[in-house]
Amino acid sequence: MSQTTDEVLTVAHAYAKAVRSKDVAQFGALYHDDVFVFDMWESWSLRGRAAVEAMAKGWFDSLGTEQVAVTVAPLWSRVDGDRATFCATLRYAGLSAQGEELRSMENRLTWSLIRENGKWQVAHEHSSAPASFKTMQVILSAP
Amino acid sequence: MSQTTDEVLTVAHAYAKAVRSKDVAQFGALYHDDVFVFDMWESWSLRGRAAVEAMAKGWFDSLGTEQVAVTVAPLWSRVDGDRATFCATLRYAGLSAQGEELRSMENRLTWSLIRENGKWQVAHEHSSAPASFKTMQVILSAP
Repeated sequence: MSQTTDEVLTVAHAYAKAVRSKDVAQFGALYHDDVFVFDMWESWSLRGRAAVEAMAKGWFDSLGTEQVAVTVAPLWSRVDGDRATFCATLRYAGLSAQGEELRSMENRLTWSLIRENGKWQVAHEHSSAPASFKTMQVILSAP
Repeated sequence: MSQTTDEVLTVAHAYAKAVRSKDVAQFGALYHDDVFVFDMWESWSLRGRAAVEAMAKGWFDSLGTEQVAVTVAPLWSRVDGDRATFCATLRYAGLSAQGEELRSMENRLTWSLIRENGKWQVAHEHSSAPASFKTMQVILSAP
């Protein structure tokens, strides 16, 4: 992998770290001020870092004493100078206060990233899971 | 809108035209050879234009005498030289052979586009709908 691809992966690892520590400010700092998000759950779209932070706060607050461990499996990426697209499968594992895995699910993630002043940020995020035609329910595990 | 943004919109209109005419080759020509797709339905991911064309063929063949009219509502885009990100709500309306609307649904679309030799192509596509926590079913209409 190129140095730049490694830098983009660093953002993914920072995402995992912010989720694990339920740190809203650390989470929000990954996103561009004017970020546009298609999130996996409930809302059609979100715009701006404040909306992303509000979503993250609701998520982290709902966890109680549990933690979420995120694992990133990169699938496809393109880096062109200060612009990048990054696609991955993200596995979210719910852990008890004792660190025991209680449940898990997988999502598909697209990030469109831009580098400004040497720092990569997420300008657009799209997370989802494919839906079954038969049940219209989302399929939360990668093959 | 800038000229470049108009050019990206032209790809969206060409997509709608290819779907309406069920033209697999015209549809496939919108995509880069090495395109990577997170599709709304069934499959976790697809890679390469041939896989996209096979998906389109299955879709078009399933329509019988019906046609699909696609309407594009742009939500957010960034164009930087020969790279662009385009986000929109796409409305798919099923039409009878007589042109009567039978049903419709909406999806969220992300395109990562690249321009090579003056031609914009889709390098990455992510289509989805948000899921309800309660039912785990996809919500197929924009607010």
